[in-house]
Amino acid sequence: MAVTKRSIKTVGLVVKWERPEAIAIARILTRFIRTKHKTPLADADTAKKIGAGAVERQQLADRADLIVVLGGDGTLLGVARMVAPKGIPILGVNLGGLGFLTEVTIKEARAALGRVLDGDYEVDRRIMLEAIIERASERLAPAFLALNDVVVGKGPLGGMLQLDVFAGHKAFCSYRADGLIIATPTGSTAYALSAGGPIVFPTLNAIVVAPICPHTLSNRPVVLPDSFEIEIHVKAPDHDATFTVDGQESAQLGPTDVIRIHRSRHVVSLIRSAHPNFEIWRDKLHWG
Amino acid sequence: MAVTKRSIKTVGLVVKWERPEAIAIARILTRFIRTKHKTPLADADTAKKIGAGAVERQQLADRADLIVVLGGDGTLLGVARMVAPKGIPILGVNLGGLGFLTEVTIKEARAALGRVLDGDYEVDRRIMLEAIIERASERLAPAFLALNDVVVGKGPLGGMLQLDVFAGHKAFCSYRADGLIIATPTGSTAYALSAGGPIVFPTLNAIVVAPICPHTLSNRPVVLPDSFEIEIHVKAPDHDATFTVDGQESAQLGPTDVIRIHRSRHVVSLIRSAHPNFEIWRDKLHWG
Amino acid sequence: MAVTKRSIKTVGLVVKWERPEAIAIARILTRFIRTKHKTPLADADTAKKIGAGAVERQQLADRADLIVVLGGDGTLLGVARMVAPKGIPILGVNLGGLGFLTEVTIKEARAALGRVLDGDYEVDRRIMLEAIIERASERLAPAFLALNDVVVGKGPLGGMLQLDVFAGHKAFCSYRADGLIIATPTGSTAYALSAGGPIVFPTLNAIVVAPICPHTLSNRPVVLPDSFEIEIHVKAPDHDATFTVDGQESAQLGPTDVIRIHRSRHVVSLIRSAHPNFEIWRDKLHWG
Amino acid sequence: MAVTKRSIKTVGLVVKWERPEAIAIARILTRFIRTKHKTPLADADTAKKIGAGAVERQQLADRADLIVVLGGDGTLLGVARMVAPKGIPILGVNLGGLGFLTEVTIKEARAALGRVLDGDYEVDRRIMLEAIIERASERLAPAFLALNDVVVGKGPLGGMLQLDVFAGHKAFCSYRADGLIIATPTGSTAYALSAGGPIVFPTLNAIVVAPICPHTLSNRPVVLPDSFEIEIHVKAPDHDATFTVDGQESAQLGPTDVIRIHRSRHVVSLIRSAHPNFEIWRDKLHWG
Repeated sequence: MAVTKRSIKTVGLVVKWERPEAIAIARILTRFIRTKHKTPLADADTAKKIGAGAVERQQLADRADLIVVLGGDGTLLGVARMVAPKGIPILGVNLGGLGFLTEVTIKEARAALGRVLDGDYEVDRRIMLEAIIERASERLAPAFLALNDVVVGKGPLGGMLQLDVFAGHKAFCSYRADGLIIATPTGSTAYALSAGGPIVFPTLNAIVVAPICPHTLSNRPVVLPDSFEIEIHVKAPDHDATFTVDGQESAQLGPTDVIRIHRSRHVVSLIRSAHPNFEIWRDKLHWG
Repeated sequence: MAVTKRSIKTVGLVVKWERPEAIAIARILTRFIRTKHKTPLADADTAKKIGAGAVERQQLADRADLIVVLGGDGTLLGVARMVAPKGIPILGVNLGGLGFLTEVTIKEARAALGRVLDGDYEVDRRIMLEAIIERASERLAPAFLALNDVVVGKGPLGGMLQLDVFAGHKAFCSYRADGLIIATPTGSTAYALSAGGPIVFPTLNAIVVAPICPHTLSNRPVVLPDSFEIEIHVKAPDHDATFTVDGQESAQLGPTDVIRIHRSRHVVSLIRSAHPNFEIWRDKLHWG
Repeated sequence: MAVTKRSIKTVGLVVKWERPEAIAIARILTRFIRTKHKTPLADADTAKKIGAGAVERQQLADRADLIVVLGGDGTLLGVARMVAPKGIPILGVNLGGLGFLTEVTIKEARAALGRVLDGDYEVDRRIMLEAIIERASERLAPAFLALNDVVVGKGPLGGMLQLDVFAGHKAFCSYRADGLIIATPTGSTAYALSAGGPIVFPTLNAIVVAPICPHTLSNRPVVLPDSFEIEIHVKAPDHDATFTVDGQESAQLGPTDVIRIHRSRHVVSLIRSAHPNFEIWRDKLHWG
Repeated sequence: MAVTKRSIKTVGLVVKWERPEAIAIARILTRFIRTKHKTPLADADTAKKIGAGAVERQQLADRADLIVVLGGDGTLLGVARMVAPKGIPILGVNLGGLGFLTEVTIKEARAALGRVLDGDYEVDRRIMLEAIIERASERLAPAFLALNDVVVGKGPLGGMLQLDVFAGHKAFCSYRADGLIIATPTGSTAYALSAGGPIVFPTLNAIVVAPICPHTLSNRPVVLPDSFEIEIHVKAPDHDATFTVDGQESAQLGPTDVIRIHRSRHVVSLIRSAHPNFEIWRDKLHWG
């Protein structure tokens, strides 16, 4: 995918402090960024610890030309939703082994960052989903962005949900299930995989529809074109349902809410590592 | 299984009023019971509508020698947990098609009841599970009885649970999953089946351990002897977990609760219908 | 998908005689074709029974502008491989219920054919796979075309195969399994579904890689772009392996053969029925 | 399970020569057996290499009071079928890591054998299956014994089989599938697991019925009491089917053969290692 690369002057760092190695590595990378005559930025707390310039976290997306994430896939997911609308590329460094999204190891981090700052890199454009919740035909809140998945699930003590689903504006399937996962190819190796879904190559223009514990055993996971809008009509008269994005943001649903999901016009620009996707699958899924 | 049959003098009726046909059929059966010189009983509301003697619902188990359930499997589950400690046999009449537990159809109901009142019947003894919750080494509340299953599940907005499980007092498996189902053979065709578990013949002395959306793909359902105690150590530091019995009774779990599950000394005595188990499986699961 | 429609003058009929209703319906359609001033053709045996013009079966693809299949999905598969290189559209009439590919019922057949002859129709372009077998670096036989799937399977009495697979010229996965299914979206509802694969929408540019009974439990089905060549290196030292196309054509494989599979430049032009894909899935898979 | 232990005077060794470490270890164990004043025996080839007494391989079961297997699970399966009718206990030493059946590692081998020779051991009694093939109501060949499984599978180039199955002399299920696996609890972690079956604890009196790639998606694996006879009516008019025992012995089936499978009166007496079953499952299935 040919992508016009932006010239990188400012690098935002997002660091997951819980991991002990994080500070040391972040400092090394910060110094390295300065060596390359670029400006390292981070939120105030982080900036102090690693010697970078301080900005509000929300401003990172406005100020940085590149984001480096030091953490795990969870950290990258949150950052991706924040910076995707700005089109800023992300370099993900995993602080323990390899991640599905954080494809660079600690050992490879400096060299990988060097290549990016020299303009020698390629980007994977990962599609995202946009979801809106409607209640009584009124749209609630702003739209949610998802890099992995949008999940409609049963409430804590509730029983099965009934979910009437339309796809591409046609009646698709009425599920009785614990929930329904609408996943991007990127999300196909996350929650949807645990629910029995297939592994989908990241660049396919597709979405996965995977029911969670469906009552009807032939309700198998389905892969649809990402041009289809997915419309989920919740029927949960006696109890409530929940809505979750990337396993990180959530909302309570009403008993007859409608959720509309379509491919976002935004994409996440992930900087590609030396590890092909297949290698990561083999490693993470113990195919060895 | 040879079972000493009690002489039936009093018949308790439990009726699910939501189904429209229920009243008419209950009346027919009530009259038929009187014809046979037996005493029909029901809770006050029901008794009035169908012409039976009135007792408190909780007293049905003390007063009746036989319980007739007119409803679906859900209705029978609730009755079974109530009357199992008394050892009273249950005849389940399904108000729509056939159930896994309510094996008698409306058309067959009068004839089936007649045979039972004449002493011409056999009983399936279905094992039950007993579960207790421990918090900080203190036992909470009384024990829960389950005919189908005991489920530990994640809270509504929470992420994956970690569940460290012991079986037969030995370390068994540490699951990262949405939850864990411990099912009887009877429950193997209910929730556990949706989670990927096997179908287990009702008389096997076995329990099914089926994880819900496990992170580790090789965490497949396991069938253990019912002599093994199952001990589940919940690890849910940031959020809460829930506990559910037969999908009907539930409790909130604390972040480090321990659940102990073992085979109950009580069994449910289900009166066997003319439909062999295999026929019910073929019908309900559309094996046709 | 805009498709330049050919003007239809000649209609080839392929009929599965084993079904008793076939002759009567074929006669009705033959007469109807003549009414419309078009020429009906069939192979000699069939032609005699239904009153159509006779040609060699192999010549149907050269002579007909439209093929009508009266049979089941299996009949259509065979016809599709034969006529796809000529780009002739196919109208599939199912002689019992509905098929995944033969989407027109007996009752709808005449009206559907009428619309097609009037030029009032749309076509689904289904991708096909092309497979070649290499032995000792030499290509064997001509290429095989598949509309549903290409399968490498173990020999009858043999044990597991080892299959080293490359995708897009990169090392993908080494399977130990009973076999491997490479399926088109069209084939995703056939054999691949029985092996645990997902249902893929017919127009997606994707292929499904689904292992049969893999030894490694995390070897889950994968969906790849159809631009990837799939290369399968068989390792079956002690026993033989088999190669099958659409479950209909097969070949014996040698112990170290290589199979190369890529998307064919041919497509099958299926005339679309009034039944959306989702309706067919719901019907065929008993989604109730 | 209390088992009267036989006094051990003679030890038969079965060694898989393909593994390079095998000879050295076998020699060490042979010397150790003599130190303990017992008689080591092996087949002529093996005996020469390791310094044991030579007997015909078929006579090992008559002459030995204990069999030590040095190899993998496959080697042990073959020995188990041979010695089970004599009730001789088996000690399985795995030449690489741990096996499901060969639970003793190389490092543990001498100490484990020492305990057994001192009478300090326990035995797991594993149930076996016995299968007979009937053609035109005539019984063919002698019965087959299986420790893991009996499999009816499709021929190499054939399509789906139809298999009409009875269990406990009642109509059970008509499968359309690639094949059917009837497995013991021991076999539940072998082929049946790859086909989607559950893991069954070794001492359960149960058998697993697991279809291979069933056409009907709700045809899920079933666990039945081992008191049920399983009767499989093959319907393979156009092609042949195959019959396999433990993946090691096989026979060609006729198009309408009947296979009868019941629990054997023989059991395999496996000497228990220090590794509980759960530990082996965690290790072999990467539950880590």
